[in-house]
Amino acid sequence: MLITPYQYFVALCLSLLCCSGVRAQQETAQLGKVKLSFNLDGQGEPVYSVSYGDQPVILPSRLGLQLKDVDSLFSRWFVLLGVDRTAVDTTWQPVWGETKDIRDHYVQLTVHLRQGAIGGAGGSSGLAAGSGVSSGGAAAPGPGGSGRRMDIVFRVFEDGVGFRYELPRQAGIRYFVLSDELTQFHLAGDHKTFWIPGDYDSNEYPYTTSKISEVDNAALVAASTAIAVRVAPDRYAVQTPLMMKTADGLYINIHEAALVNYPAMQLHVDGSSLTLTSALVPDAVGNKAYLHAPCHTPWRTIIVSDKAADILSSRMILNLNEPSALASTDWIHPMKFIGIWWEMQTGKGTWNYSDYPDSLGPTGALIPNGRHSANTANVKRYIDFAAANHIGGLLVEGWNVGWEDWFGNWKENVFDFVTPYPDFDVRAISDYARSKGVAMIMHNETSGSATNYERQLDTAIGFMRRWGYTAVKTGYVGRIIPRGEHHDGQWMDNHYIYVAARMAENHIMIDEHEPMRPTGLQRTYPNWLACEAARGNEYNAFADGNAPEHETILPFTRLIGGPMDYTPGIFRLRGYSDVPGRQVHTTLAKQLALYVTMYSPLQMAADLPENYAAHMDAFQFIRDVPVDWDDTKVLEAEPGDYITIARKGKGQDGWYVGAITDEHSRTATVPLDFLDKGRRYKAIIYRDADNADWKGNPEAYMIETRTVGRQDRLTLKLAPGGGAAVSITPF
Amino acid sequence: MLITPYQYFVALCLSLLCCSGVRAQQETAQLGKVKLSFNLDGQGEPVYSVSYGDQPVILPSRLGLQLKDVDSLFSRWFVLLGVDRTAVDTTWQPVWGETKDIRDHYVQLTVHLRQGAIGGAGGSSGLAAGSGVSSGGAAAPGPGGSGRRMDIVFRVFEDGVGFRYELPRQAGIRYFVLSDELTQFHLAGDHKTFWIPGDYDSNEYPYTTSKISEVDNAALVAASTAIAVRVAPDRYAVQTPLMMKTADGLYINIHEAALVNYPAMQLHVDGSSLTLTSALVPDAVGNKAYLHAPCHTPWRTIIVSDKAADILSSRMILNLNEPSALASTDWIHPMKFIGIWWEMQTGKGTWNYSDYPDSLGPTGALIPNGRHSANTANVKRYIDFAAANHIGGLLVEGWNVGWEDWFGNWKENVFDFVTPYPDFDVRAISDYARSKGVAMIMHNETSGSATNYERQLDTAIGFMRRWGYTAVKTGYVGRIIPRGEHHDGQWMDNHYIYVAARMAENHIMIDEHEPMRPTGLQRTYPNWLACEAARGNEYNAFADGNAPEHETILPFTRLIGGPMDYTPGIFRLRGYSDVPGRQVHTTLAKQLALYVTMYSPLQMAADLPENYAAHMDAFQFIRDVPVDWDDTKVLEAEPGDYITIARKGKGQDGWYVGAITDEHSRTATVPLDFLDKGRRYKAIIYRDADNADWKGNPEAYMIETRTVGRQDRLTLKLAPGGGAAVSITPF
Repeated sequence: MLITPYQYFVALCLSLLCCSGVRAQQETAQLGKVKLSFNLDGQGEPVYSVSYGDQPVILPSRLGLQLKDVDSLFSRWFVLLGVDRTAVDTTWQPVWGETKDIRDHYVQLTVHLRQGAIGGAGGSSGLAAGSGVSSGGAAAPGPGGSGRRMDIVFRVFEDGVGFRYELPRQAGIRYFVLSDELTQFHLAGDHKTFWIPGDYDSNEYPYTTSKISEVDNAALVAASTAIAVRVAPDRYAVQTPLMMKTADGLYINIHEAALVNYPAMQLHVDGSSLTLTSALVPDAVGNKAYLHAPCHTPWRTIIVSDKAADILSSRMILNLNEPSALASTDWIHPMKFIGIWWEMQTGKGTWNYSDYPDSLGPTGALIPNGRHSANTANVKRYIDFAAANHIGGLLVEGWNVGWEDWFGNWKENVFDFVTPYPDFDVRAISDYARSKGVAMIMHNETSGSATNYERQLDTAIGFMRRWGYTAVKTGYVGRIIPRGEHHDGQWMDNHYIYVAARMAENHIMIDEHEPMRPTGLQRTYPNWLACEAARGNEYNAFADGNAPEHETILPFTRLIGGPMDYTPGIFRLRGYSDVPGRQVHTTLAKQLALYVTMYSPLQMAADLPENYAAHMDAFQFIRDVPVDWDDTKVLEAEPGDYITIARKGKGQDGWYVGAITDEHSRTATVPLDFLDKGRRYKAIIYRDADNADWKGNPEAYMIETRTVGRQDRLTLKLAPGGGAAVSITPF
Repeated sequence: MLITPYQYFVALCLSLLCCSGVRAQQETAQLGKVKLSFNLDGQGEPVYSVSYGDQPVILPSRLGLQLKDVDSLFSRWFVLLGVDRTAVDTTWQPVWGETKDIRDHYVQLTVHLRQGAIGGAGGSSGLAAGSGVSSGGAAAPGPGGSGRRMDIVFRVFEDGVGFRYELPRQAGIRYFVLSDELTQFHLAGDHKTFWIPGDYDSNEYPYTTSKISEVDNAALVAASTAIAVRVAPDRYAVQTPLMMKTADGLYINIHEAALVNYPAMQLHVDGSSLTLTSALVPDAVGNKAYLHAPCHTPWRTIIVSDKAADILSSRMILNLNEPSALASTDWIHPMKFIGIWWEMQTGKGTWNYSDYPDSLGPTGALIPNGRHSANTANVKRYIDFAAANHIGGLLVEGWNVGWEDWFGNWKENVFDFVTPYPDFDVRAISDYARSKGVAMIMHNETSGSATNYERQLDTAIGFMRRWGYTAVKTGYVGRIIPRGEHHDGQWMDNHYIYVAARMAENHIMIDEHEPMRPTGLQRTYPNWLACEAARGNEYNAFADGNAPEHETILPFTRLIGGPMDYTPGIFRLRGYSDVPGRQVHTTLAKQLALYVTMYSPLQMAADLPENYAAHMDAFQFIRDVPVDWDDTKVLEAEPGDYITIARKGKGQDGWYVGAITDEHSRTATVPLDFLDKGRRYKAIIYRDADNADWKGNPEAYMIETRTVGRQDRLTLKLAPGGGAAVSITPF
């Protein structure tokens, strides 16, 4: 691990000379069943471990950083200056979310470390006196990084551990370049793992379920030709959130929280030692991060429970993020939306106005192809549908010039974000939408050219404000510009946050597609409603699609970081494509259930108005289902198999249940004991028909109405690839 | 040269199979003494040569491009489809310049080339019938790039040759990545050469004079520690404009014109074959340029004459640029300016407000160091001086927050370009400057973080417009962000042009420091008054300075591309620095002469008001000398030795003469036959005192007044490192 022979020699000498002094006592912190242990090993290297009850979660694993310049190794020869301990138990209210209140309950252990002089005089050893650190008492720097300080902060929750590195203000370290982070997660067994490749530019892979020792992404990366940009140089690297299940039935999820000014952490898998090592996405010149002390890394998170449902109920990631940074949030409104989008995904229409990118007609204008979806008449048709069906927003893609030639050429100036195609009458459309009470959602596809978007951002925002767009969907399809940067690197991390913050300043909500996967920053920027950053429903349109188990895995992986714009609600599940065998890999009822199981404050009703028109009875659930919640109960869950969730609408008395399964049929039993005592409710059950199955008969559903109370339980039969959705509203 | 064994084999087969057909006839074009010859060699490789009278300038040299992807070699196996010839002789008027009228006189030869099928059927050979190319008649692509077309356009002027590659619209090439340009300049001898290293990020080196075969920049690059960023991976690469002199007294200058959407061309020197090869500055991932056919490269320029003065008088670079792209230009005003700048360069004051970058005082504000130059009182003092002395503008550096911590850390968000330090009262200063008729010049230092500048540009421009700043000096000290990009790469080329164009839209003039060296784009963007991009006078303040010959070389090299903000006018030539031996390497009179010899429409009077106050008689020349001209006569010149130029002020009857020498004293004889017949003029001669010399007695000058007419001649004695300036105004 980047140890030169000289460093190894020095370390060896050090361990021989003074190892008895450097080995510090073990520090522990515990809450409920979760216990964190920390110590410095014989080389003064920070080591931690995590257990859950009597079960090991993380075996002793090293911690540290690697700096680029002189005295670069920042992972050993430490002495413990002292520790701080605090405990917190508070409750806060998110602007929107799965529950009205979120409890933040943890004990915190901060270990203050200092690198000792190496082979020199005056190096401290062992535990320094006192448990606090005076900021005025920094030791003088010396050879081998002597005197440099680092803190590691652990927060132990009832459902896991978060920790981060903090570099305090000090003379020895100011600006520095991070060449590596050395965090390890030594697993206690060869766990069953739900993983996608550690790709620098895409999270849009299907999940593989395998033992951790079997991780090898090469074949999957090579085969995934439907993904626009794939850069996965390490075949043994996986993306986070990484979901695992031990042979003893423990569920472990590793991710990160509050990823700010830092690259995404992927995990390199050493299958022989069962060790995961942080692998930061590099920048254009191979560096990992440019930092300025005082500073800290994002939180590294380990969520753990013996119940899978607890993983989905965990709020640890949100708790580790900073509170809202916005001056006001009353302008932020979760909503459902429809879009001029699926018709392009399925080939009915086009984003581009012309099929002749380099050609102009006799008048000097683009030659229209006659199939351009974002035309004024079509947009008005969608506005009418939204207005008639209580759908809050309308997204229109392909409205602005540039789609003839937008992708694949690493071209910087693709779109200007303000010039509509000639058949898109922005004034007429804005006026019409306003008159119908429908919010227009802007679409800013960058084609991966983040520099161009930043250049145009003021102009793009000015356009949105002028025409009354209060939400924007951004996109990053393609290789990133600045060239050499990656979707998941530090530069783009800062870019996404910059854009979200600028949108917030201008009271614009944002939904990012093809970004870095989220890490709970929606708490800090609550206008950042959703992201894609995973394999969405769209892959059923333009590629081989998503296996029936896909939606049972996503909540355990990608959604641990934040809401996903998965675009559920496809009703026409076959026959939308000319490609033989192409179909959505769910039943219609499961599409409804996703509005509950796949949490997002921004939920699309993704299918075409005409396809909804054929099933308006089923569409009623989409009309009714909220996108913001006072309460959430994860009733049962098993990654890769099934999820059943009940949620109570924000400010409502009604509950909504979603139950989904993988390729196997199953019966979900839903005790209704979350209902109010003594109250009667009307339950409308949208379920698979008895003969439904995702492959052969996906659109067969039944709608049943029952009167229920808290003593009742619903028995929901789910078809293979099926699901059920239930609205339960009081009489 | 990037030829794989396979390509070599194919080429060999081709030459054996069909070389007799591929060898096309020689095409020539001539104007005056300059003759251009072109042919395809036995491998269908384009070859050109240039001669001047009977002297060879460029021996037969190859031409071509290397594309990145399949069929990448675009330099051989060509057949000649035909040639076009045109002739142009027009005159145009620059918005500002060295002369009122500029004649554009050339003959143009366009050769239309097509790559033949390699070893396949149907490949054309020899000269295709007809001399025109129908755009509808593109040959179908085939193996080995067959059918791909390229034009090479040569313009032959009386003072040299320009040529460029043009890729027409065609099916076989659309978007492409350029991995190399293969242009060569095969020299006819081991010429005396004035060169600086081919550095990707800096032009601020002192010039070396050596034979071309002796070029080796390694030691100079290593020693030039005063240059902030040095990236010169090829020790045999030199920057352009490259000035050479043959043993036979021919002067040859190689550069480029109209550098748009392309990296700068440096020249790799093969000292054994005396061949220069284009070496394009790479981007972050090693590519050279991203292009989209139809497109063309910049012009490659060879200026040649047997008189050195003709090199300085050449307008070829401007003629090869496009006319003004601006909607209006009446708001563009060449001007002189002073600046709060030299006092920081010399250590009297500081850019930064605080010396404690990471520290705040008890009130939470920065701790002032008491030496911050950009404070309101000091700014008003400069405004007063400018107003009293007919100096049009005032530049203030260090006015905005960020200077505590602005450089050297590859930090992205250094400045916001709008937040003044607490002691800089922008409103009071703007009001005061307006009341005094002095134009405030904005300063936007980017620290090399171009991404940050683009992000803030709208805001920065809004600030300028709000406070009435009509000119801006930009700066790029430091490694470029996007990281991995270079000052001289394609991305930054587009950046500089983007910024200049945005400034033009907002009627703001621009002066760029640390940019790419200019290539005549000031014709297209006449608000782009000047650049630095060379070793300016400032090196006399903070480093070992510039040799006395330096200013006799710059007009032959860097200034061939466009005006330089050299910042002349230093009057206190010694004692401004605590560093022993540090002094300006000229006399005071030479500083005056530079206002004439170092052309710029934006000329700084760089010294402090108090230093000017000690020599107000000499300062009178700076007050008087224009910055825009109706006519220019280069009276005598030899690179590295001396330059004498006379210029006639724009719209004036007065003439101004500047004469400078290197470290040797000399006598410049100036016939005044450019004066109007029968008219008497008052000549004020600012010359070195008889005992002056740059090293021991630099500030000794004499001012003499004489009455002269066109039959007179001035005899100007120049001290070692000296000069003379003369104003000649009619009675």
